[in-house]
Amino acid sequence: MQSANKMAYLQSMPKSETIKLREKHIGAACQLFFRSSPLKIVRGVAQFMYDEQGERYLDCINNVAHVGHCHPHVVEAGRNQMSLISTNNRYLHDELVILAGRLVKTMPEPLSVCFLVNSGSEANDLALRLAKVHTNKKDVITLDHAYHGHLTSMIDVSPYKLNLPGGPEKPDWVHVAPVPDVYRGKYTCPHDSCSEEELGQLYADEVKSLCDTATRQHGGVCAFIAESLQSCGGQIIPPKGYFRKVYEHVRQAGGVCIADEVQVGFGRVGTHMWAFETQGVVPDIVTMGKPMGNGHPVAAVITTPDIAKSFADTGVEYFNTYGGNPVSCAIANAVLDVIQDEHLMERANRVGTHLLDRCKDLKLRHRLVGDVRGKGLFVGVELVTDRDARTPATAEAKHIVNRMREQKILISRDGPDSNVLKFKPPMVFTIKDADRLVDTLDMVLGELDSQLPITSIKLEVSVTPLTDVNTSNDMVISNLKQTVKSL
Amino acid sequence: MQSANKMAYLQSMPKSETIKLREKHIGAACQLFFRSSPLKIVRGVAQFMYDEQGERYLDCINNVAHVGHCHPHVVEAGRNQMSLISTNNRYLHDELVILAGRLVKTMPEPLSVCFLVNSGSEANDLALRLAKVHTNKKDVITLDHAYHGHLTSMIDVSPYKLNLPGGPEKPDWVHVAPVPDVYRGKYTCPHDSCSEEELGQLYADEVKSLCDTATRQHGGVCAFIAESLQSCGGQIIPPKGYFRKVYEHVRQAGGVCIADEVQVGFGRVGTHMWAFETQGVVPDIVTMGKPMGNGHPVAAVITTPDIAKSFADTGVEYFNTYGGNPVSCAIANAVLDVIQDEHLMERANRVGTHLLDRCKDLKLRHRLVGDVRGKGLFVGVELVTDRDARTPATAEAKHIVNRMREQKILISRDGPDSNVLKFKPPMVFTIKDADRLVDTLDMVLGELDSQLPITSIKLEVSVTPLTDVNTSNDMVISNLKQTVKSL
Repeated sequence: MQSANKMAYLQSMPKSETIKLREKHIGAACQLFFRSSPLKIVRGVAQFMYDEQGERYLDCINNVAHVGHCHPHVVEAGRNQMSLISTNNRYLHDELVILAGRLVKTMPEPLSVCFLVNSGSEANDLALRLAKVHTNKKDVITLDHAYHGHLTSMIDVSPYKLNLPGGPEKPDWVHVAPVPDVYRGKYTCPHDSCSEEELGQLYADEVKSLCDTATRQHGGVCAFIAESLQSCGGQIIPPKGYFRKVYEHVRQAGGVCIADEVQVGFGRVGTHMWAFETQGVVPDIVTMGKPMGNGHPVAAVITTPDIAKSFADTGVEYFNTYGGNPVSCAIANAVLDVIQDEHLMERANRVGTHLLDRCKDLKLRHRLVGDVRGKGLFVGVELVTDRDARTPATAEAKHIVNRMREQKILISRDGPDSNVLKFKPPMVFTIKDADRLVDTLDMVLGELDSQLPITSIKLEVSVTPLTDVNTSNDMVISNLKQTVKSL
Repeated sequence: MQSANKMAYLQSMPKSETIKLREKHIGAACQLFFRSSPLKIVRGVAQFMYDEQGERYLDCINNVAHVGHCHPHVVEAGRNQMSLISTNNRYLHDELVILAGRLVKTMPEPLSVCFLVNSGSEANDLALRLAKVHTNKKDVITLDHAYHGHLTSMIDVSPYKLNLPGGPEKPDWVHVAPVPDVYRGKYTCPHDSCSEEELGQLYADEVKSLCDTATRQHGGVCAFIAESLQSCGGQIIPPKGYFRKVYEHVRQAGGVCIADEVQVGFGRVGTHMWAFETQGVVPDIVTMGKPMGNGHPVAAVITTPDIAKSFADTGVEYFNTYGGNPVSCAIANAVLDVIQDEHLMERANRVGTHLLDRCKDLKLRHRLVGDVRGKGLFVGVELVTDRDARTPATAEAKHIVNRMREQKILISRDGPDSNVLKFKPPMVFTIKDADRLVDTLDMVLGELDSQLPITSIKLEVSVTPLTDVNTSNDMVISNLKQTVKSL
């Protein structure tokens, strides 16, 4: 096979040698996936990745390869533009203004001014800089377990990194609000007895209280920054109405609202292009990255003319060497083409709904599955060893990720306790892929069912009054006890 | 012509429309080159760029297009890898480890551990983060007028941005040393009466004094960061021995030394791969970017095993979504190939020396030219209206940049007074290009000679004792006066 030969040529180094060189020359802080037996990936096609042996893996986690690994239209756009010109945005270029115009068209008013950068981290850094200049304030409210990037300025507002041993101390101008996690967060609903709105209100009140603190301490709020759906924090879907109330509080305190769409944007949620839209809010600044270039380093900040003007009015020049270069823009334009031409949002909705439904079904059959949540092709399966106490099943989650890999399916886990299986596959994921993912997970969960000690079983029984038959309640209960015994 | 047709198709928007869309959708803080009449650049080939009319410009400033715009070998490498796979560095890939190995080979011991990132800004941000973790100190010494990137953390150590009206205040942990500019800096040599070493000592003593301050105030120094040759600061070549002495002081105060090679690395200086080598020093951390991907967003940090270990020992994971992806690495490897195969370092030395010599010749003939300095293809021509007072000729520099553009030659200007013409062309620049550049500059300077009022002329005359002829010193002086009158 010719392509296999080419592959062999391009990746001629034995895997052991690649590992040796990596250990020698790449900082150990850059960690490998499956550290004890890492994967060498040499090819990608749509939702599949291939290792150096030609083994095919179903990729359920690579939200960066948004329209599918090496999508021909995107590759072609990159190839063409690379041959023509790639220079900085101090020169005019159509690809840049076309991209900006197209991105703006997907946004609600008044979000209409773009800054093109190279990574989500750079985008979030610029977003905070814009917020600081515009509000002339410093205090930032962020969510617990949030991750907004690897830069110094981003670690300051990323409790996901701040809380680590090597992390720096939280600056006094950063305020951490509880993550609106209705399953294992500060406010939960143990018996589904309260409404989403009520929980949204409780979590939003926490932000209000931080706004009050910031106002008391430093005269107001600069910005509230949050992923529209929290990703590293454990695939969190905030309760209905949460962002609407939060935005009100933040704006009342003089702050601007930043929606971080780096992980969840570009139609992943299925029903909308941007995840913030599912909450019916309009942010002041939106950041985007990962899926934007299908793997190519490109990202953006979109904001209002007012905020952009505050920034320009300082007289500062914002120059980003590669930001908005024609190749990055051509590639991003091609990604937008594919999302549109292949109806990937509609597909995310259809396949995502199927995936979510099937995962919910797993919950009925495997006691490890504590919660299943998601929107479109952004799905989380939270594992617990005890459904009542909601004790995180961290070791089990790790085991499952490894077992799935043995089955040639790549998933990962996240959340503060690393017990949430996360699925955020390329958007070309099919119903068949979803079925394969869930069927395999079903099997792996089944293996665990027989191994784990039962710590508690909760029986939820609705007893209909038995007026027309000759059966007492005592008999019903006695029958139930028999059933439980036989489980 | 087929290629022209294709160009017309790809850039079918009238320039006026591109401008209109840009004004509407791109932040005004992103400034255009030649703002009143910007260029629309649609193609690049080697050291030339083409506008939408097919006009060809000699590019004397684009150090990013290091091996020449759209170099076929680099484009090919990008094209190929884009079709195969581009994913994150949590998977093994040969291109990454090969690149790291090759970069390390160009470095002196013990610089042997790499981190791959997307931009020079990201690289400098990580460098400071590494320094902070390793030294457990915070104080940073930077040079006046320095520029290390557009990120929040970099603006803190970039007086080029800090000093601006919209810039933030200098943090108390940042200490600004005078730039070792021997022409218009704090210590200069008005009559070439002192040695470079003496000046180097004086400037290094300034850093020592800041080390003492930092030690007194906060118990030591975290890092000294400087471009090996200051670029935005005005194409500054530090005096001999400067960095050696500075590094001694900084290390004595517990700090690490960061060499920012983002603008000047990859052989530009001609004699060495890295500009720090011209000063005979070994930094603790080296950052690189711009030329590395010939326009593709890729950058790197290289450090010692000790510093990398300090970082890894914190337990932190450093994950950079696109950092070290196979496409970026394949492109960077191809850039290294070209530098080697086309002997571009040797060429930078040869062409750069010719360019420098010819620019020095301009100084003899045009009173606007105050100083000419450079190394390899990194050359600065500092313009002054008064050679004694060294008054910056800012308006004249602006005029010259515009006049050169009319002659289809792109140069730019920089330095705190924007009076230094800077040349840092793609490394494929030829002797012929250098001649064209200097000849045209000669002509433009000539136009100015006749327009500008003479504020002072300094005649340097070496009088040889006239023992064997019948001419008195008085006669010589009288003849000179006549000559001056006729000028």
